[in-house]
Amino acid sequence: MVQKKNKLKVFSLGGLNEIGKNITVFEYDKDIFVVDCGVSFPMEDMLGIDLVIPDFTYLENNIHRVKGLVLTHGHEDHIGAVPYFLKKLPVKVYGTKLTLGLLENKLKEHKILSTTSLNPVSAGSNIKLGCFIIEFIRVTHSIADSVSLAIKTPVGVVVHSGDFKVDYTPIHGEIIDLHRFAELGKAGVLLFLCESTNIFQLGHTMSEKTVGTIFDQIFEDTSNQRIMVATFSSNVHRIQQIVNSAKKQNRKVAIVGRSMTNAVRTASELGYLDIPKNILIDISDINNYTDKQLVIITTGSQGEPMAALSRIATSDHKQIEIKPGDKIILSSHPIPGNEKTISRVINELMKKGAEVISEGMMNIHVSGHANQEEIKLLHALIRPKYFVPIHGEFRHLCKHKEIAIELGMNKENIFIMGVGDVLELNDNAARLNGSVPSGDILVDGLGVGDVGNIVLRDRKHLSNDGLVIAVIAIDKATSSIVSGPDIISRGFVYVRESEQLISEAKRLVRNIVNTYDNKTKAEWSNIKFRVKEALREYLWQKIKRSPMILPIIMEI
Amino acid sequence: MVQKKNKLKVFSLGGLNEIGKNITVFEYDKDIFVVDCGVSFPMEDMLGIDLVIPDFTYLENNIHRVKGLVLTHGHEDHIGAVPYFLKKLPVKVYGTKLTLGLLENKLKEHKILSTTSLNPVSAGSNIKLGCFIIEFIRVTHSIADSVSLAIKTPVGVVVHSGDFKVDYTPIHGEIIDLHRFAELGKAGVLLFLCESTNIFQLGHTMSEKTVGTIFDQIFEDTSNQRIMVATFSSNVHRIQQIVNSAKKQNRKVAIVGRSMTNAVRTASELGYLDIPKNILIDISDINNYTDKQLVIITTGSQGEPMAALSRIATSDHKQIEIKPGDKIILSSHPIPGNEKTISRVINELMKKGAEVISEGMMNIHVSGHANQEEIKLLHALIRPKYFVPIHGEFRHLCKHKEIAIELGMNKENIFIMGVGDVLELNDNAARLNGSVPSGDILVDGLGVGDVGNIVLRDRKHLSNDGLVIAVIAIDKATSSIVSGPDIISRGFVYVRESEQLISEAKRLVRNIVNTYDNKTKAEWSNIKFRVKEALREYLWQKIKRSPMILPIIMEI
Repeated sequence: MVQKKNKLKVFSLGGLNEIGKNITVFEYDKDIFVVDCGVSFPMEDMLGIDLVIPDFTYLENNIHRVKGLVLTHGHEDHIGAVPYFLKKLPVKVYGTKLTLGLLENKLKEHKILSTTSLNPVSAGSNIKLGCFIIEFIRVTHSIADSVSLAIKTPVGVVVHSGDFKVDYTPIHGEIIDLHRFAELGKAGVLLFLCESTNIFQLGHTMSEKTVGTIFDQIFEDTSNQRIMVATFSSNVHRIQQIVNSAKKQNRKVAIVGRSMTNAVRTASELGYLDIPKNILIDISDINNYTDKQLVIITTGSQGEPMAALSRIATSDHKQIEIKPGDKIILSSHPIPGNEKTISRVINELMKKGAEVISEGMMNIHVSGHANQEEIKLLHALIRPKYFVPIHGEFRHLCKHKEIAIELGMNKENIFIMGVGDVLELNDNAARLNGSVPSGDILVDGLGVGDVGNIVLRDRKHLSNDGLVIAVIAIDKATSSIVSGPDIISRGFVYVRESEQLISEAKRLVRNIVNTYDNKTKAEWSNIKFRVKEALREYLWQKIKRSPMILPIIMEI
Repeated sequence: MVQKKNKLKVFSLGGLNEIGKNITVFEYDKDIFVVDCGVSFPMEDMLGIDLVIPDFTYLENNIHRVKGLVLTHGHEDHIGAVPYFLKKLPVKVYGTKLTLGLLENKLKEHKILSTTSLNPVSAGSNIKLGCFIIEFIRVTHSIADSVSLAIKTPVGVVVHSGDFKVDYTPIHGEIIDLHRFAELGKAGVLLFLCESTNIFQLGHTMSEKTVGTIFDQIFEDTSNQRIMVATFSSNVHRIQQIVNSAKKQNRKVAIVGRSMTNAVRTASELGYLDIPKNILIDISDINNYTDKQLVIITTGSQGEPMAALSRIATSDHKQIEIKPGDKIILSSHPIPGNEKTISRVINELMKKGAEVISEGMMNIHVSGHANQEEIKLLHALIRPKYFVPIHGEFRHLCKHKEIAIELGMNKENIFIMGVGDVLELNDNAARLNGSVPSGDILVDGLGVGDVGNIVLRDRKHLSNDGLVIAVIAIDKATSSIVSGPDIISRGFVYVRESEQLISEAKRLVRNIVNTYDNKTKAEWSNIKFRVKEALREYLWQKIKRSPMILPIIMEI
């Protein structure tokens, strides 16, 4: 029997004051479990970084208490870091069928599928992890099989929204389980954690179904042209609707892009996507069909340079070449920061004669996240005692707090938290108390966490003005220069046009080295420092650039 | 007497298929003149580049025919490259007072003010450059003293819109000279060059005056807090309205940021900005006033890391520190690509307790560019025979063409041009014919054009995975290794944690070098190549990164 005097601890290792990298931890007495484990994408100053994952230090230090990992849905910002998590913390994973199906693809790539315990759950069911009973509640979102969680803890019930929207006419399955939220609210909810992604959007998100109507209309109006639709590979409802519209116009569907192919296969196998056999064709067979018989579904709606659509736009794709008249639909919303790359792809496609339909021109996209009125609905049903806004930048969390206050909550019962901040609760009190280690762990190639500030600072420096190496060989015995100085540069100036600059730099280095009579190892750092300073000063005067300067002394 | 059989040539060296770097060239017989000469800002892949300017090769090759440079207004994308232009082509410059005033600041920095001939013109007047007569027509825009041009050429009249909006209630001076456009249209216009920036925006831009009403309202509602407004330094009308609202609430105004200080001084001196003496205070005096007595006007509305607002947000500003309650207005629209940095600044300001009002929350910004209906108005008045959409990406130009066709133009009379493409016209025909050299010239520090693809490729490579140097000294006589191999890395891995990787790399290099018995200079490139390949392969296997690898052999 768990003692009531203990406190429930709730904290996030990501997803607060940032977009992405969502992960929330629940702890009571000896039991810990984790909700979601996502990645975020590198900021502009994280040069060369592939992914950002949460810091698992606290969980590793308490590994024997971690009872399991529970997933709300299969988006990258919720499952992308699971392989890295499992390598440190090989616990049981719980999620709905599609979520686990998409995760399987990742675990295969990381070669840990066979050693991982994947436990499918379905909406409406419960699992027990230590003292926690976790109930999965059906919600609608831009990926199928998404759930919210109701977590029964020894001090009360916590509701974690996951990602959701209130779609009364979903493409597949039933609507969000409002009845269950109502029941929970009536019985009493201690704490509500609610996503804040679209908190600045007024009103109510349009239903996914409205996009299908527009697709039907576009497909009907397109008589002889080929149609291509770019969207997120995980949005199986969107893909289903493209397939439905294609079917109505007797068009075949070909899938392009690795992640799209994987997602379509997984979703089809699990029954979340219904593509009649006679409709799906292989991309290598598209030349057997006329343009008006074809719809191509592709990745790259965010202008990602390596994705299929970008490669098609720059004539760098093996199987697909744009022809004048091709009708291309970008069925997505630009993620902030991607506007310029998306524009570039659109311009390239148009230059090749394609007609491009993007958001703003027609209603070919709806968000998967709840707008203000939907968020208010969940608050109103759940009526929590305490509330923590999650999934958003600081300004999103503040706005969400403001709205909760408008809804009648006491502002002392709302907590704007940062990553690592710990909220402690019992059944009638809550307060922030201390923090656990947290932060960004950078993934670069196979390296996890080995790129830190020093490496990034050097990359930044190198990227701005390149590199100048001054190398010289010195005879240990005579202290004389036996070879060099040579000057090597990269990313600095076009050397053939800067011969004078380089030869002057050599002279400068030689002069400095020659002022030292006794070039002992002890003097090296002095020599190096002076060479560096002199070159830095000289190059700045001459050309107002500050390359990284690396003096190298070889002792013979 | 100019012979009529000659053709007018019109081409742009920038501003087509891109945003910024606006410059248009007119040529007839022996006469050439240039309209505007702007910069664009570097694309994400132009690492370390400060500015992008047009390629002036064609003009330099025809330097004796260039009669002058005519400016439409004082924005960076229209005058930013003038100093670089004048260093190659020291011709007379024509523009309105404020345009030349802002240009003077630039010419001073480049130390060419005293050698430049600046010739002020006013709206309604004409100048003669060779066979061309250029008339300046008053328009409204987000900077005062903007003009369109009507160019009388031997084959007919060309209208160049410059940047404009149709503001019926401008802050200073009169409205756009619709009468003159009407007269020109009635008399017959051969060619219209019209800006396309807001071609995707429906309807009509709101008047600048509407922003003032909102400022009044916000200032009225702010009783005890300090107010800070960030906007573009060149938007003197916006600044005037902030000052007006401040005056009504008996607040003093302090100016922050170098470009803002310069612009306010220039505009005040020239009479475009009216700040009563008892209102303007020095930023160093703000501590003599209470919060409710202060309005601070600052740069940095685009989140630029070096601008005042960003530095204030990160507590890196000498004179201003955010206090809880400060009300900060971002009176601007995010330039595509800046959304993330602006968000970051907003979040930082909010974390320090400031209340931030940004676009979308209140109507605290209007565009300076014409929306569709305003663009249609100019087309309708001017009724050109031929039309070239300018100032926009390909998709903007295409949309503008579409609209011109809707307005009744013959599509054969509309030309979507690229930079360098030459349009040839006589009084009853126009066609694209050939091209002149054009492109992006990159400015990095004092270097203009010395950073090209090779240097950028190296910077990109260095920024992604850093650098590994393998250096070794070899005895010429014995062919033996006399020092090294040493491995030096930067921006690659944190070396202290990767000792094994580095020592293994050393072993690898030594083995390769030792397989060569006779290390003649002829063999060096072979040795270097093999070292490079072996290290590349090894590091990729080990850590899936591809740093730049530089083998250096010193011969003793």
